[in-house]
Amino acid sequence: MSSQQRTSWNVQSSTMAQSAHNPIRQIVDKLKLDPQATKSFISLSVGDPTIFGNFNIDSSANDAVIRQLQTFKHNGYPPAHGTVDARNAVATMVTCPEAPVTADDVLLTNGCSGALDICFNVLGNPGNNILLPRPGFSLYGSLATIRGMESKYYDLLPEENWQIDLKHMESLIDEKTCAILVNNPSNPCGSVYSKEHLQAILAVAAKHHVPIIADEIYCDLVFKGNTFYSMASLTTEVPILSVGGLAKKWLVPGWRVGWIVVHDRHHILDAVREGLLNLSQVVLGPNSVIQAALQDILHHTPETFYQETIEQLEKNTKLSMDAVSKIPGLKPVQPQGAMYMMVGIELEKFKDIGSDVEFSQKLLAEESVLCLPGECFTYPNFIRIVITPTVDRLEEAYKRMAEFCDRHTK
Amino acid sequence: MSSQQRTSWNVQSSTMAQSAHNPIRQIVDKLKLDPQATKSFISLSVGDPTIFGNFNIDSSANDAVIRQLQTFKHNGYPPAHGTVDARNAVATMVTCPEAPVTADDVLLTNGCSGALDICFNVLGNPGNNILLPRPGFSLYGSLATIRGMESKYYDLLPEENWQIDLKHMESLIDEKTCAILVNNPSNPCGSVYSKEHLQAILAVAAKHHVPIIADEIYCDLVFKGNTFYSMASLTTEVPILSVGGLAKKWLVPGWRVGWIVVHDRHHILDAVREGLLNLSQVVLGPNSVIQAALQDILHHTPETFYQETIEQLEKNTKLSMDAVSKIPGLKPVQPQGAMYMMVGIELEKFKDIGSDVEFSQKLLAEESVLCLPGECFTYPNFIRIVITPTVDRLEEAYKRMAEFCDRHTK
Repeated sequence: MSSQQRTSWNVQSSTMAQSAHNPIRQIVDKLKLDPQATKSFISLSVGDPTIFGNFNIDSSANDAVIRQLQTFKHNGYPPAHGTVDARNAVATMVTCPEAPVTADDVLLTNGCSGALDICFNVLGNPGNNILLPRPGFSLYGSLATIRGMESKYYDLLPEENWQIDLKHMESLIDEKTCAILVNNPSNPCGSVYSKEHLQAILAVAAKHHVPIIADEIYCDLVFKGNTFYSMASLTTEVPILSVGGLAKKWLVPGWRVGWIVVHDRHHILDAVREGLLNLSQVVLGPNSVIQAALQDILHHTPETFYQETIEQLEKNTKLSMDAVSKIPGLKPVQPQGAMYMMVGIELEKFKDIGSDVEFSQKLLAEESVLCLPGECFTYPNFIRIVITPTVDRLEEAYKRMAEFCDRHTK
Repeated sequence: MSSQQRTSWNVQSSTMAQSAHNPIRQIVDKLKLDPQATKSFISLSVGDPTIFGNFNIDSSANDAVIRQLQTFKHNGYPPAHGTVDARNAVATMVTCPEAPVTADDVLLTNGCSGALDICFNVLGNPGNNILLPRPGFSLYGSLATIRGMESKYYDLLPEENWQIDLKHMESLIDEKTCAILVNNPSNPCGSVYSKEHLQAILAVAAKHHVPIIADEIYCDLVFKGNTFYSMASLTTEVPILSVGGLAKKWLVPGWRVGWIVVHDRHHILDAVREGLLNLSQVVLGPNSVIQAALQDILHHTPETFYQETIEQLEKNTKLSMDAVSKIPGLKPVQPQGAMYMMVGIELEKFKDIGSDVEFSQKLLAEESVLCLPGECFTYPNFIRIVITPTVDRLEEAYKRMAEFCDRHTK
């Protein structure tokens, strides 16, 4: 023991733990529900489709897990990056002639957030920067911060269906840029990018030799007239780490099953592949029983399940657009997929509301309706509406929102 | 874009990913099974009790998960650190008058390795050091390395049932020491510490004001004549992060359900508690359905299940001690709990075996029996035997091991 023996307890939390704050929680903590509220609470804030009872996993997929539990054969440690069968189930689902992959290109992770965590950790060193969408999912910035990386936000353009301002994005790239994160379909925007736009993004990445992390957790949740293209299917050159999971398309966010698919046709990511395997060893992947059921979940869930999910989302979106666009002072942007709608607030039309946070605060206090302010997504003057509640809850929420705005407009 | 535009692809993996190697895999990769081997392969190497079919979760606990799946009510995001009910299930199981805790003191994690990861991250900054047991579970060193922390290994004494060399441990503490990790019962030693020894460890921690991470994943897996004491139950002063999980006692390592219990009677860990919550937000905790079943698993698994597990482990230990102590050149150390037995190799008695790694290599090549060399636990000249295989597999393995040693002794 050195001479500087401690004379009292002084245990701090690490700088990493201190920096790991969740910006949404910080903002939401300020939004307090009045315990005297007489109106029932309606949350349009949580991106969890299961909480209202109208979106459920298909019973065939649920039964697949039950069957595997009944065998008592899948309770042991799976390989750190997932069983061959589970990785194969993902690979055969996502492979296509334009972007062929096998089980060797797949890692199973603890949810899509676990997948993103590993992608950030494998590509970024402290001092690097990563390009992130604004508005965007707040976890991206949190992951960058705890790794000591700088978040550089590129603008999305609401007037162009939230397409990326490519000039702005390109201007942010420098020698310290380790990756560009692209989220399509988007949380919080509900946007779905065209093939041409995705190709234009890829051209920037190719020009500057920057790999892409494609957050495609909302893949296939797209409305009529739109098509989901995986980024990997549109390039043979740019290396892509595509992340996904069961959370949204299969409606089981609590199951914590995600994956990373490595698309790399020219051995650019050989070191990264090894790094991914190393990182997967630290905490290991998702629940073994669900891994055993993954083939059934991904390949034998009936098509009608996916269709019904999208029909319901689309119907709720239409209802939301119709209702909110009639409210003075609010300007919703038409979603093309996912589960969200961004709504601009014309602050100049309100007499006593100075910001999106204040809008959310007062709406909650007066109407017991909670929407996240755009501030949660680094994008002030908007609110995000989650469109997965039941129709009657949505209608009631928009009715209250209309009364609220009516009361507060000049 | 800066003037230094990249002219080609050059994507490396981060230093963190490079440092995240698993030392066991590196060593085991050198141990190749001869594809021409005529003898059936027997693994005494993996600390997974489920792989031989003789250790299974109690069917009541399994049924509890199935029941929760059938409700379709627990598929959404649980709170990042676990549901109140699941945290309460852990708290009411571990609380005792000497170390009272509530749900507020518990965080659910992705397995016990996820719990350890968060504990290392919350207490340690790069440049800190952490005291780890030698021999010890290799993940400890890996977690320290990827955090940029120094691993300082304190010696365990095989001749004293693997008690800690307290003088040595104390000599390692300096102003950069952020924690002492104590693993009881121990992997790989199978040791169970007495109350007096645990109190002596706590006295060192108290004297130097260093918190303890108590890895108690093998809690209660102790053989007749021994008692498991949680470290927290023996101190009111030293703050303790105790980690555990379903993996070993409930025989479902693949389910990836672990927990951290914060024991801190004097508000020494207030900042650490906040840091733990911050860190839990990043990747979120374990599967929501199993969280919903946790109360049943922890509180309604019949006592006979635990008794039968221990009886089988004890019987296998006796069989292993009897067989291995008769093999010339091998000196097993009597286990007192857990699922492992450390066996010293008297290298001077062998004519053509120069190390524990070579012993394991040749045993595998010639007899198709795999044991991990002590090198995997920072402890040469020993091998670790996992005692969970079926009796007939164990007997066959020891028969082959005896023939092997016979052939190779001088």
